[in-house]
Amino acid sequence: MSDPTGPTVADVGEFPAISRAVAGRRQPDTTLVGPGHDAAVVAAGDGRVAVSTDMLVEGRHFRFDWSTPRQVGRKAVAQNGADVAAMGARPTAFLVGLGCPPDTPIAVLDEISAGIGEAAEEIGAGVVGGDLVQAGQVVVAVTVLGDLEGRAPLLRSAARAGDTVALAGRTGRSAAGLALFGAGHRGYPALLDAHRVPSPPYAAGVEAARAAAHAATDISDGLIADLGHIATASGVMIDIERDLLEPDDELRSAAVELGADPWDWVLTGGEDHALAACFAADVALPDGWRRIGTVRAGRGVTVDGRPRTGSGGWQSFSAGHSR
Amino acid sequence: MSDPTGPTVADVGEFPAISRAVAGRRQPDTTLVGPGHDAAVVAAGDGRVAVSTDMLVEGRHFRFDWSTPRQVGRKAVAQNGADVAAMGARPTAFLVGLGCPPDTPIAVLDEISAGIGEAAEEIGAGVVGGDLVQAGQVVVAVTVLGDLEGRAPLLRSAARAGDTVALAGRTGRSAAGLALFGAGHRGYPALLDAHRVPSPPYAAGVEAARAAAHAATDISDGLIADLGHIATASGVMIDIERDLLEPDDELRSAAVELGADPWDWVLTGGEDHALAACFAADVALPDGWRRIGTVRAGRGVTVDGRPRTGSGGWQSFSAGHSR
Repeated sequence: MSDPTGPTVADVGEFPAISRAVAGRRQPDTTLVGPGHDAAVVAAGDGRVAVSTDMLVEGRHFRFDWSTPRQVGRKAVAQNGADVAAMGARPTAFLVGLGCPPDTPIAVLDEISAGIGEAAEEIGAGVVGGDLVQAGQVVVAVTVLGDLEGRAPLLRSAARAGDTVALAGRTGRSAAGLALFGAGHRGYPALLDAHRVPSPPYAAGVEAARAAAHAATDISDGLIADLGHIATASGVMIDIERDLLEPDDELRSAAVELGADPWDWVLTGGEDHALAACFAADVALPDGWRRIGTVRAGRGVTVDGRPRTGSGGWQSFSAGHSR
Repeated sequence: MSDPTGPTVADVGEFPAISRAVAGRRQPDTTLVGPGHDAAVVAAGDGRVAVSTDMLVEGRHFRFDWSTPRQVGRKAVAQNGADVAAMGARPTAFLVGLGCPPDTPIAVLDEISAGIGEAAEEIGAGVVGGDLVQAGQVVVAVTVLGDLEGRAPLLRSAARAGDTVALAGRTGRSAAGLALFGAGHRGYPALLDAHRVPSPPYAAGVEAARAAAHAATDISDGLIADLGHIATASGVMIDIERDLLEPDDELRSAAVELGADPWDWVLTGGEDHALAACFAADVALPDGWRRIGTVRAGRGVTVDGRPRTGSGGWQSFSAGHSR
């Protein structure tokens, strides 16, 4: 924690702490009524709003000895923003519920808020509201609103046999970073950073909706696990091809050093917040998307036509530190 | 906790637990895409959405030896729904982030979810999404969306000298219930229930917006504290009249038994989620509203023209169990 000798949240009190978190932050045009009232009012131009919520818990989703408070804030925005991007929506606003112990330095709160604010601003969204409460550990609950701008939302349930399965962004890098942290290995800074702050390909979600993708999801639990959600919801089978997912040299090198299998990271590692989508076979994949497989009749997810044994991905209440 | 011998959240796993929480729950017409995708899609008929978020923490905002899990869920909806009601909006959708220890009985989760679901349904709103994560204590983060239905939002910042200050609902009852719980007194069931599950006057918020109220807020931190937020935001003074806020016989009787001052409860008790608003002096107060004072030039909040000494209300990081 930064500056443990500075004033704490308890010293400053709730209202000043919230004011500090939103002070000086620019609001986009979509923020019609910003913080400072009982609720915010956000524009929903096409008469609909896409909305999703996520909760990050200290010691489970982040650790302050691995990530700075600012990175924790950035991660919360990325994780949540990817959910509306996977629907084909553009994030417009974030709300933040923050729980922390009373002896939390106000500097930590300021840095989490700064990370949330700057990450939201980078994607054109506002931070429009929040709540600050006392809790036994740091808990960050983030809700995102998104604008579909007249497009049909991308669901998990409309993939069809024959569709092309495509990926925007990369998988396995957050899991590799987590493994490096766990082993006390501080090489491969790009992989460590991928775990600290994922980089969802926001624009690719909008492009997929413009290209009338049949289904999409973000990769939060692992490629096989999340494609499995599409397969189940759509009543189809998804086959992915190893040749199209080859781990890059960085992943391979890190895996050699840790005695790990880079394919585990690529196929089952969570938290990269890449996007996967299923497109009609005759559609040219939009910018940022590359083919990784095919939708077929059947059920489940296969790799080169065969079920993959082992863990399918990450679940909140299974063993292990973090997703 | 109910049925501590039953299966736990860890036994059941994240996805089934979320499915249980939303299964069989009716969605209103405003839920265009419900749970089961990366984000929900909610109608925002007039091209705007009112939105607010709140976090409730076990041991701080509720205790399972005082409240059932179902009551905790109902309280989370009421607390959050009152925020959009205070803007003059009608709640349309709730999202729930739930943190809990892995050994939490699934029955507890089911009951919290049932309380959230039934309370949302009673006010015509859907529960459209959620997240379930592992945490050291039970944390309920709720976000509410509201529909302004073409009305101007009620802000805190537009009260004017000469306005009538009015109240919908009652104050002091939750604080009385909390004091009774703290003293181990199980009489006055209506006051205990007022602390367990507040009853915001949702319709009164809509009526206030229809009557073009100048400012409004919900009473979450205490009457004086929350009117103080309006006074500060509007640059005015608010004077309330004791004669118009007389504690009823139930409050007086409970106060006598506990050796407490019922005026402390009425003026500074939080969590009732009554609504306060400032109306132009020539406006007939709508149904559910009664006059309690007047807006004047100046600053701060007075009672019968004098500042009230003592605590102005509840703050998250001050001493004491709960607001």
